[in-house]
Amino acid sequence: MSAIAFPAPDPSILARRPAILAGLAALLPAECLVTSEDERRAFETDGLTAYRQVPLAVVLPRTTEEVSRVMAFLHGQGVKVIPRGAGTSLCGGAIPQPDAVVVGVGKLNRILDLDFANRTARVEAGVTNLAITGAVAHRGFFYAPDPSSQLACTIAGNIAMNSGGAHCLKYGVTTNNVLGVRMVMVDGTVVDIGGQHMDAGGLDLLGLVVGSEGQLGIVTEATVRILRAAEGAQPVLFGFDSVEAAGDTVSAIIGAGIVPVAMEYMDKVAIEICEAFAHAGYPLDVEAMLIIEVEGSPGDMTEQLRKIIAIAREHGVKTIKESRSAAETAAIWKGRKSAFGATGRVADYICMDGTIPTGRLPEVLRRIREITDGYGLKAANVFHAGDGNLHPLVLYNINDPREQEKAEEAGNDILRLCVEVGGCLTGEHGVGIEKRDLMGCQFDRADLDQQMRVRAAFDPAWLLNPAKVFPLDGRLPPEVPARPAAA
Amino acid sequence: MSAIAFPAPDPSILARRPAILAGLAALLPAECLVTSEDERRAFETDGLTAYRQVPLAVVLPRTTEEVSRVMAFLHGQGVKVIPRGAGTSLCGGAIPQPDAVVVGVGKLNRILDLDFANRTARVEAGVTNLAITGAVAHRGFFYAPDPSSQLACTIAGNIAMNSGGAHCLKYGVTTNNVLGVRMVMVDGTVVDIGGQHMDAGGLDLLGLVVGSEGQLGIVTEATVRILRAAEGAQPVLFGFDSVEAAGDTVSAIIGAGIVPVAMEYMDKVAIEICEAFAHAGYPLDVEAMLIIEVEGSPGDMTEQLRKIIAIAREHGVKTIKESRSAAETAAIWKGRKSAFGATGRVADYICMDGTIPTGRLPEVLRRIREITDGYGLKAANVFHAGDGNLHPLVLYNINDPREQEKAEEAGNDILRLCVEVGGCLTGEHGVGIEKRDLMGCQFDRADLDQQMRVRAAFDPAWLLNPAKVFPLDGRLPPEVPARPAAA
Repeated sequence: MSAIAFPAPDPSILARRPAILAGLAALLPAECLVTSEDERRAFETDGLTAYRQVPLAVVLPRTTEEVSRVMAFLHGQGVKVIPRGAGTSLCGGAIPQPDAVVVGVGKLNRILDLDFANRTARVEAGVTNLAITGAVAHRGFFYAPDPSSQLACTIAGNIAMNSGGAHCLKYGVTTNNVLGVRMVMVDGTVVDIGGQHMDAGGLDLLGLVVGSEGQLGIVTEATVRILRAAEGAQPVLFGFDSVEAAGDTVSAIIGAGIVPVAMEYMDKVAIEICEAFAHAGYPLDVEAMLIIEVEGSPGDMTEQLRKIIAIAREHGVKTIKESRSAAETAAIWKGRKSAFGATGRVADYICMDGTIPTGRLPEVLRRIREITDGYGLKAANVFHAGDGNLHPLVLYNINDPREQEKAEEAGNDILRLCVEVGGCLTGEHGVGIEKRDLMGCQFDRADLDQQMRVRAAFDPAWLLNPAKVFPLDGRLPPEVPARPAAA
Repeated sequence: MSAIAFPAPDPSILARRPAILAGLAALLPAECLVTSEDERRAFETDGLTAYRQVPLAVVLPRTTEEVSRVMAFLHGQGVKVIPRGAGTSLCGGAIPQPDAVVVGVGKLNRILDLDFANRTARVEAGVTNLAITGAVAHRGFFYAPDPSSQLACTIAGNIAMNSGGAHCLKYGVTTNNVLGVRMVMVDGTVVDIGGQHMDAGGLDLLGLVVGSEGQLGIVTEATVRILRAAEGAQPVLFGFDSVEAAGDTVSAIIGAGIVPVAMEYMDKVAIEICEAFAHAGYPLDVEAMLIIEVEGSPGDMTEQLRKIIAIAREHGVKTIKESRSAAETAAIWKGRKSAFGATGRVADYICMDGTIPTGRLPEVLRRIREITDGYGLKAANVFHAGDGNLHPLVLYNINDPREQEKAEEAGNDILRLCVEVGGCLTGEHGVGIEKRDLMGCQFDRADLDQQMRVRAAFDPAWLLNPAKVFPLDGRLPPEVPARPAAA
């Protein structure tokens, strides 16, 4: 069924499983070690549920020191390691292999330090995204990146995937909000990268670690920037008679240098699905809708909205509806943030995450429709329009293998289109296994070779999350050691 | 005189100089090749003028292709390369070696593309910082990072050093404003990293390249973010009777989550020096002054200033003076941006660039005074207070060798203090040769080893800017090839 290949498990590792489990059991108490098949099966997949692999074992260490001891032991045994946060990855970044041990950070869940004067929080890496805001909200602060999975996903996973969210238009994605990490290298060595200050001289390994999809080490602690919450926030719904008018409005707002805190796009298909789920008052008589949120003092918001509304009117906006209460605001965001789940109630879907220069938005929206029409499929478009981060959901019936194949081809065509117009394969979901085999259409050989050389400078034996990100086609620079080929 | 050692030149390279020059002459026209001793001497130092080394030759290629051919040739010959922008480095980042060829980007000075809809500019790397703003100002846009040398310094140098500036408090430093680079690797291979879109999946080599001090390759083109200029800007001078009151005010403003566009600190010594130079109307009857600039619509500015003034009054501010004209604003910023030059008129100085958590500002200012008092020296403190980026200038007489030695020791003590309170050695000037031998007090062995492994993944033979950033004490991880030791 699947077009994505996994490497063949290493029989020598499978044969040594009892010794490996005994070694782990000597390092960790029983409640930190998952070995039974039933319990291991809970870790067989992540948010990309089409693919499943049961791991050799799962360890859930409680401290950096335990992670270090586990990594040193597994390194000595030549065992592959799959780092795991909450398992909400949409690209298969946490999917295991049968010959690999999952190292989960779920028990590393303490908030270590809150420093309001310096606007930083130091947390263990298994703390959830929303728990950071939860710990600082009483003082009027928040942690900015807000992936839709923020109730569950961990800061470790956010760092691995450089996660974004609807409000990253103003506040940046994870890499713009993380100041430092403590990381256990593949051989158990503990390094501190960055800290509670500006860039520290030497090579900026922090930017490299953020978005490295668990291939450079296991992050066990993070120091993140916390921000003062704005005085108020106001989402406004803008309905348009055409996809192009909505796209043009986004381009014009960005081109005018206006940066609302969020600017989200939904087309008719997505509006209908999300409205049925969230009863948010979305307009049902339009072809496309923008949710634009401004924030600040009442005066700031009025002034920014005045400019945005003027631009929307120039582009023929049909309906404008401001939220009038906290309950309405909550419903508006519930509809948007539940878009994937709500879509899953009505159809199977493949979620793409391509990102484009915002100036190309109207053209790309038109061509996405042509692509899905060409395959006889429908797409729901719901995405972070302000930073050009598309999330077209290609709808299909998973019980019809021909339709799944067509959906995957349409998805690949859409990603190639994003790259063609000067964009990229993934804005915030990561490469994982899902986009691994498309990396060659984004990067040429010299680019990928250099990335792999850098990766090898952290993990020369290719033990960390090895089947992800880089194509398994054997195209390796000569000085980088080989890794297991696809099965 | 100098405490900083250079590596001994490789005699085999010096002996092959005629063949190397002939090879370069075959690749470049005469006007792109500097070989006479007189002309080479123009490249012997940079902004850290205490150290001088005449290079083997200087090449000034006009295109990425020429850079690629030169690098491939020099790589084949095993010749070291010193990348150079405008030579304004304050840490000796562009100081040559007698056995190395300087590759300057001064002739790579074309603006390639301005895309206002996507708010990006693509430029060759020898374009000056201010020329980018110059090219987009007619449409109301600007390029944000503003090092004091912005009239002269190149975007290549800004990328090498991850340069900041007074207005980076709001807009971030270079790494927050660069979207992509074209880079020639040490062997001549050309790679494109990043581009006109969000983070592209795979390893984020862009964050690694920014701030890599010319050790990973020669950047020949950059795509940068341009921003819409604010409607207006208003600097205000705040005078305080004590260093602590000024420091506490900075901490309180940042702690309250207010982000002015700039927040600059000057102590009494710096105020007197800069006022004598710029006649900016700085208050002379105070111990410390803050220049706080707000920007936005008139309403935005009034509101933000109201909050800032209230905090300053809580901390006993003595004088508050708003700029009342464009001429006054220009004089205020001329005084601040000329601080180093103006100080040079009255004394020799060592400029430190340590950075600390802003919450520790009052304590660190007190301890800096204790350190300089202990050596019987004076310091002028002038710095980017909002992001904790200190620039204490330790004043001394260069003709008194004992005093120079004491000044260097005081400078090192100050940097160790910055690291001790959770800060770092350099906020924006870079490590270069100046702070190279102090890196061990910032990073432990595992941290430095990993940085060197990554560096070796780009330049295994250690040919690019080899005597900078990493201590020359032979502490290399075993798998990283050795480099020439200090003379």
